[in-house]
Amino acid sequence: MAKSIAGPEIERLIQLLAKLPGLGPRSARRATLQLVKRREQLLAPLAAAMATAVETVKVCSTCGNIDTRDPCTICADASRDHSVVIVVEDVADLWALERAKALNAAYHVLGGVLSPLEGIGPDELTIRQLVERIAGGGVKELILAVNATVEGQTTAHYIMDQLAGMDVRITRLAHGVPVGGELDYLDEGTLAAAMRSRTAM
Amino acid sequence: MAKSIAGPEIERLIQLLAKLPGLGPRSARRATLQLVKRREQLLAPLAAAMATAVETVKVCSTCGNIDTRDPCTICADASRDHSVVIVVEDVADLWALERAKALNAAYHVLGGVLSPLEGIGPDELTIRQLVERIAGGGVKELILAVNATVEGQTTAHYIMDQLAGMDVRITRLAHGVPVGGELDYLDEGTLAAAMRSRTAM
Ligand SMILES: [Zn+2]
Ligand SMILES: [Zn+2]
Repeated sequence: MAKSIAGPEIERLIQLLAKLPGLGPRSARRATLQLVKRREQLLAPLAAAMATAVETVKVCSTCGNIDTRDPCTICADASRDHSVVIVVEDVADLWALERAKALNAAYHVLGGVLSPLEGIGPDELTIRQLVERIAGGGVKELILAVNATVEGQTTAHYIMDQLAGMDVRITRLAHGVPVGGELDYLDEGTLAAAMRSRTAM
Repeated sequence: MAKSIAGPEIERLIQLLAKLPGLGPRSARRATLQLVKRREQLLAPLAAAMATAVETVKVCSTCGNIDTRDPCTICADASRDHSVVIVVEDVADLWALERAKALNAAYHVLGGVLSPLEGIGPDELTIRQLVERIAGGGVKELILAVNATVEGQTTAHYIMDQLAGMDVRITRLAHGVPVGGELDYLDEGTLAAAMRSRTAM
């Protein structure tokens, strides 16, 4: 849309919404139109919810999960088995495993995978924090639930090297996860099955 | 995601975003995650842009367009030919025609189409305002740029009946518009060509 058609406030909304995953320029225009048409029912509540989220959202200092409390709801949940830690690349993967009710354990969010090409080394991820967490004791099993991609597997092996000699059992998801597949796109049954038949590395 | 995983503030954001066209529950989760991860660069600006839009967005009292001023930018634009009025169902269609640079004229946004099944009669649309606008004089040509659907064509014929005897030329878009097609999904070249070869009704 040319700048001159609607006000700059509307144009700015389109441009910001177009940055969301899954929304291109066209769907951002449609979403904006829907928002401004449903000003009271949708736009105002969404503006308020976003403002609240800006104030309340935190990164968990223990596991890297995103929540409105620190430690996060999962880390603070006494009904979980905190001696089992599931290592995921991203919070989206944590959410996917939780939706699948895969295992009632704790997590560690890496914040990505090693990728020399993109300049992502160990220090860009939470690998050091993970090693410290394991060194601190109390974790019996570490499940490396990284994506079945080259970078994911490279990251898994790097983590194994860092933990060499420590008293922790390291496992990975069973090969029910399709090669090259991303956890967040898998159906919940596949995810739960892969978790059940996880194997020692 | 289960309610207990992240805070209720995050859950609410997901639920509201899932109401946007083009975003299902899964993409709303991904969008929410992206937003809370990029709190300063994306979430905060978007919250502010939405709050501003809540305050500033208006429906044009002349043509039904959505803008931050009334009369809207198009109605207030002296370089346009206001003796030609393009009737569209929705603001999305107005934006599509403007992107196509179809015609430098004025608009009238109906706010939908006649649909007895959905309980949408003439009073739910801006047809009365359109008739008054034409009766007020100054409009030489009315282009009925409604969708090439049954409801769109029914609405076009209803408008023609209401304008019977008035001194205005009524045209429609040329049949370059695919039967059953919706304006907002057409490429700009097709839209511009259909506008150029519009025919008398
Ligand atoms: Zn945590
Ligand atoms: Zn207007």
